[in-house]
Amino acid sequence: MFKLVLIRHGQSVWNLENRFTGWTDVDLSDQGRAEARAAGKLLCELGYEFDLAFTSVLKRAIRTLNRIQEEMDLDWIPVIRAWQLNERHYGALQGLNKAEMIDKFGEAQIKIWRRSYAILPPALALNDQRHPKLDRRYADLTPEQLPVAESLKLTLERVLPYWHSVLEPTILSGKRVLISAHGNSIRALIKYLDNLSDTEITELNIPTGVPLVYELDDNLRVIQHYYLGGSEVIAKAAVAHQGNAKTY
Amino acid sequence: MFKLVLIRHGQSVWNLENRFTGWTDVDLSDQGRAEARAAGKLLCELGYEFDLAFTSVLKRAIRTLNRIQEEMDLDWIPVIRAWQLNERHYGALQGLNKAEMIDKFGEAQIKIWRRSYAILPPALALNDQRHPKLDRRYADLTPEQLPVAESLKLTLERVLPYWHSVLEPTILSGKRVLISAHGNSIRALIKYLDNLSDTEITELNIPTGVPLVYELDDNLRVIQHYYLGGSEVIAKAAVAHQGNAKTY
Repeated sequence: MFKLVLIRHGQSVWNLENRFTGWTDVDLSDQGRAEARAAGKLLCELGYEFDLAFTSVLKRAIRTLNRIQEEMDLDWIPVIRAWQLNERHYGALQGLNKAEMIDKFGEAQIKIWRRSYAILPPALALNDQRHPKLDRRYADLTPEQLPVAESLKLTLERVLPYWHSVLEPTILSGKRVLISAHGNSIRALIKYLDNLSDTEITELNIPTGVPLVYELDDNLRVIQHYYLGGSEVIAKAAVAHQGNAKTY
Repeated sequence: MFKLVLIRHGQSVWNLENRFTGWTDVDLSDQGRAEARAAGKLLCELGYEFDLAFTSVLKRAIRTLNRIQEEMDLDWIPVIRAWQLNERHYGALQGLNKAEMIDKFGEAQIKIWRRSYAILPPALALNDQRHPKLDRRYADLTPEQLPVAESLKLTLERVLPYWHSVLEPTILSGKRVLISAHGNSIRALIKYLDNLSDTEITELNIPTGVPLVYELDDNLRVIQHYYLGGSEVIAKAAVAHQGNAKTY
């Protein structure tokens, strides 16, 4: 039996400001840093150990991981940074305030952009200063790999090849893996692991900074999954996860 | 021309307590954390950029690097953790107070253990709880690779193969490299790069938390090297480096 632990980064400053974030590289808020440390303390208290950690190339996930490693005294384990674990790219919505966008486009449209499975948000123009081709951390990506907007479906289509080519063999080799990532890259993984429908996954939320454990059998089929935390945290996670009929 | 930046971790809690540290995995002190952040701010202000960072597997070096990356907004660059960059292993002296050891063995003996090039400190017994075979981060090392005590010479003999096999080709590929390491693993590198004699290197100290820049030609021969910082920092570095007749 394998145990995989997923964690969505702690609260970011744009979670707090209610902005569409996507690939924008915003920092954790004070609360987010505290969530990360609390998650690390909890994993340590519960006796979790890791051999290897993965994170996106976005600082809110990396700084969450740094704090977990510090609290667990696991600074030394290898850390692999992969753009494939990045948040869904929110296209031209990135940086915009969600409430203002509701005023402008109506709640129904915003819900479609946020919650549909395959519909894309408005794309970034090629000359937009927010275009990822201008960011040297993505210099090795092909033009086809550089997103200008992603649906959850497109997010899954870059997360899943990474799962199959890197994460699966690592887990199967017996290494205990921790993944620090984002709401939508984690939802993409969960959709695959739990075999959720396009509708089921769109209703599922991932709370920030709460470790989510997947117990997997020898073929990496899900045995069970659960959040770690006190009753308050678990209640919060359950509310977030309300769209999921499984064992949360 | 290539630029390589070396940094010795910020002050550790055992630097502060005046203990032999070696491979003991002690944390940074508050001052050490501040030194790391100041180094990151300075590198950022001076326009330094890095593509890749290396560190030992000891938390005082990793946490120094984390803070530099946070201050430079370079969390996303790949980080390679290598035991070969660890501090010199101080054998059975690890954990002991330097002043108490002077009382016990006399200043001359302590100076020999600290400052000779090839003389080993007392070795750890095989059943010593501090033996690195008991630490799972070293599980992949062969028995021959696991030190029970190291001289600076032995330290160099594990740092240098890593330089040749990993660091050299990385620098020659054009990647801008930052190395967060330790007094003796950095001295080993400097001895090689600057072609210092066994005597010259034993008189050279590396200040904590001060970036040391090496400018290297196309054959990785040293053009010049210098510390970064205000006049006070440079003065401190120069005092530490007093044994070196070169351009500090």
